[in-house]
Amino acid sequence: MTYENPLRDPRDRRLPRIAGPSGMVLFGVTGDLSRKKVMPAIYDLANRGLLPPGFSLTGFARRDWADQDFAQIVHDSVKAHARTEFREEVWKQLAEGFRFVPGDFDDDHAFDQLRRTIEELDDVRGTGGNHAFYLAIPPGFFGTVVGQLQEHGLSTPKEGSWRRVVVEKPFGHDLESARELNATLANVFPSGSIFRIDHYLGKETVQNILAMRFANEMFEPIWNSNYVDHVQITMAEDIGIGGRAGYYDGIGAARDVIQNHLLQLMSLVAMEEPTSFSADNLRIEKEKVLSSITLPRRLDLTTARGQYAAGWAGGEKVAGFLEEEGIKQTSTTETFAAVTLNVENRRWAGVPFYLRTGKRLGRRVTEVAVVFKKAPHLPFAESATEELGKNALVIRVQPDEGITLRFGSKVPGTQMEIRDVNMDFVYGGAFTESSPEAYERLILDVLLGDPPLFPRHEEVELSWKILDPILEHWAKQDASGKGKPDQYESGGWGPESANAMLARDGRVWRRP
Amino acid sequence: MTYENPLRDPRDRRLPRIAGPSGMVLFGVTGDLSRKKVMPAIYDLANRGLLPPGFSLTGFARRDWADQDFAQIVHDSVKAHARTEFREEVWKQLAEGFRFVPGDFDDDHAFDQLRRTIEELDDVRGTGGNHAFYLAIPPGFFGTVVGQLQEHGLSTPKEGSWRRVVVEKPFGHDLESARELNATLANVFPSGSIFRIDHYLGKETVQNILAMRFANEMFEPIWNSNYVDHVQITMAEDIGIGGRAGYYDGIGAARDVIQNHLLQLMSLVAMEEPTSFSADNLRIEKEKVLSSITLPRRLDLTTARGQYAAGWAGGEKVAGFLEEEGIKQTSTTETFAAVTLNVENRRWAGVPFYLRTGKRLGRRVTEVAVVFKKAPHLPFAESATEELGKNALVIRVQPDEGITLRFGSKVPGTQMEIRDVNMDFVYGGAFTESSPEAYERLILDVLLGDPPLFPRHEEVELSWKILDPILEHWAKQDASGKGKPDQYESGGWGPESANAMLARDGRVWRRP
Repeated sequence: MTYENPLRDPRDRRLPRIAGPSGMVLFGVTGDLSRKKVMPAIYDLANRGLLPPGFSLTGFARRDWADQDFAQIVHDSVKAHARTEFREEVWKQLAEGFRFVPGDFDDDHAFDQLRRTIEELDDVRGTGGNHAFYLAIPPGFFGTVVGQLQEHGLSTPKEGSWRRVVVEKPFGHDLESARELNATLANVFPSGSIFRIDHYLGKETVQNILAMRFANEMFEPIWNSNYVDHVQITMAEDIGIGGRAGYYDGIGAARDVIQNHLLQLMSLVAMEEPTSFSADNLRIEKEKVLSSITLPRRLDLTTARGQYAAGWAGGEKVAGFLEEEGIKQTSTTETFAAVTLNVENRRWAGVPFYLRTGKRLGRRVTEVAVVFKKAPHLPFAESATEELGKNALVIRVQPDEGITLRFGSKVPGTQMEIRDVNMDFVYGGAFTESSPEAYERLILDVLLGDPPLFPRHEEVELSWKILDPILEHWAKQDASGKGKPDQYESGGWGPESANAMLARDGRVWRRP
Repeated sequence: MTYENPLRDPRDRRLPRIAGPSGMVLFGVTGDLSRKKVMPAIYDLANRGLLPPGFSLTGFARRDWADQDFAQIVHDSVKAHARTEFREEVWKQLAEGFRFVPGDFDDDHAFDQLRRTIEELDDVRGTGGNHAFYLAIPPGFFGTVVGQLQEHGLSTPKEGSWRRVVVEKPFGHDLESARELNATLANVFPSGSIFRIDHYLGKETVQNILAMRFANEMFEPIWNSNYVDHVQITMAEDIGIGGRAGYYDGIGAARDVIQNHLLQLMSLVAMEEPTSFSADNLRIEKEKVLSSITLPRRLDLTTARGQYAAGWAGGEKVAGFLEEEGIKQTSTTETFAAVTLNVENRRWAGVPFYLRTGKRLGRRVTEVAVVFKKAPHLPFAESATEELGKNALVIRVQPDEGITLRFGSKVPGTQMEIRDVNMDFVYGGAFTESSPEAYERLILDVLLGDPPLFPRHEEVELSWKILDPILEHWAKQDASGKGKPDQYESGGWGPESANAMLARDGRVWRRP
């Protein structure tokens, strides 16, 4: 963070971080991501006073729009999705910085106009030559767009200013394509100017994993294979693929969620204490975890995949995945994936990490459950502990953000009987401060040039290295006809094969 | 537990423990203890079906009462103080077993009549010769009463039946008097037939200390001097001495609370895992802790005592201790006491235990706070952890029974800032079962002959051994005029000297 905030009283070290003079160019203004996440987050940041007065947002799309049309799109998006209240004066000041450039990604004139627009903004809005290019577009276009930015002199900052590029998953569909994608970006932007958004890392509860682990004395001593039996990381969605067949078919749950969100969560849960929370130190520890992950030998027994069957969800009859519009009846794309990972280091050897994700499951929930071993000995009558399970520390990432501790407690009564109870910490209830959206945090970090919460290309490639053998195993099963995704009930918790996968290890999935 | 419950299906190992044929003789029927605790607990046990159908309660007092008068006294007490609802049919059956014997403690005729009453009960109610003598009377009379019981053949059971005696604190006022008292009881009753009630041990949350520590995997690994900074045990009352000047003057807070309740709590918190929860195994571990306790060298710096000053409590003007009726202006009896104890063993060396108790404090609360060290290193910006304190695990004994975990969590917002938060487990909220009163549990245990929750004479004497040097130190201060109890504000948290005592160690008392 090189920007010096002139409003900042050096005696108060907890004043908010405020972005310096800057603007953003948004490619893909009509997509869900832009309308539901990026635009509302920019308004919320402005409303919280964290954007500079001259902040400018330029839309680029193949639409015959004037600036006002773009402003209307942003306005509707903010009204519908912003977290903070709508304030006319904030909106007005923000909207003065809206520009729109119409054009195709291969249209040289359009990129020339984009350059002129940016120069004009530097003149009239004081954006100072600092611009972030947010590629909210399919990765197939990344190459074209960054090539255009380079060719039209947009990617290279003038002395004392910066240019940055922001991209979203999917970061490729396997190791090879990820490497190509990274090379494409690295051709044009230096590594420190590429911001890969994994919005999970912007979530408060995810960042709190680090606070919880390393600001406290109570948790770290038991955070290892001496005490931990296994770890479960779950991201469950209750919805199906919706209208996203085109994106989803051929991608599937493992590529869509495990490769990025769940492996990032896992690396935060499993990593050693970083020397500091600088991007470099965090990256070192995350990469160490990712490099230490190995797969069990028998992938047929330690992975599971499924497709949701037709059934009922939310009181409505819903189609099975294979009946969804745009999905071939023969598709083997999985909508549920579960994998078993080992971490081959001193802290975690022998402690399996079970990762699972799926659509059309019992409810929308993301959580990390650190499940502890049973106490080595129970000095109680056998009947006293019949209802005692394993202790667990559950980090509830969403919804109901917080932490749950599950442990055995005496049942009230005139005898010793022990039963599991939950102890809850509700993140929202503990603070008067409200949680910013992940995108607020991450966009602010882009403008501040603060990279700790963005995965580096090394992490992306390491994640694919872990996933590729599983994807290949499944592809081989498909090709040989020896296996295919199991059908599972809508509203349940995935296919029986996922339960069998844990049962083989003498364990069960939590019902989150 | 030798009694075989005929109702008990051996396949269901969690059927309630039910007392066998038995009766109880209550000395001191007009006192607070009998009316507020013992009688209601007996009704509640009957109401819960845990007493045998023929259970009989015999009152003994210097009153010219018939059985019906005694029944009326019990009735009023049950109506006013029972925990469970009043059911006419339960009451009726119970009341049929009420008897009253009028007489002085030195009245031989009265004890003869008591013997005949008991024999009659064995005949008509089937109490089977099993009788507990509950001495809810000042300890000065223990000798007389147990002597009479012996002389009149009441203390010796016939073959296959039992006689037990139940006594309450104070168990003496120093080591010597405690030894005398124990000898008096031991003269008449064998050690296994003497039940000393420390009602704290009957509290659900106190028993839960053992369940929490030894049924779980999460807590025990950090339950030692590697991770624990110190332990605070607090029993605070908001009331003054009320009308109990006669009892309280010359006794004081240390004898009244620290010697029994707080040292018992401490031994449960500090002890090693017992081989089992049998009385003998528990006693061994508690005695090991009590034997390992040492006092710091400088008692003037590591203890504190005080007397409440006149002031306001609950919106009313209240008298100071020295102005209370029945208290001499020159009394040096303390109404607040705080002591520092060390435990000289491998687990606890270097971890001070701070015990405090007092009357007329901020609120009525009993808690054990295990305060952990700061994390050995904080990989955060210094400003991020300014509001981070020490982790603590707080066992809330009363009221609001439960457990609180205090730890640092990220404050929501677009920067890393860490602040202490509380995570609560509310004992009452976690179970549909309601908590029995301590006296229900303990009286049932007396009738079952189940001794784990009763301190043995060894523990009582060890506790006095710890306290005696402190009491002597204070007495010396009094005699030499070099110190006396500090006055403290009503509704506060004790004298400044108690704060100074912790401040010298770089610590502060929790505000519970």
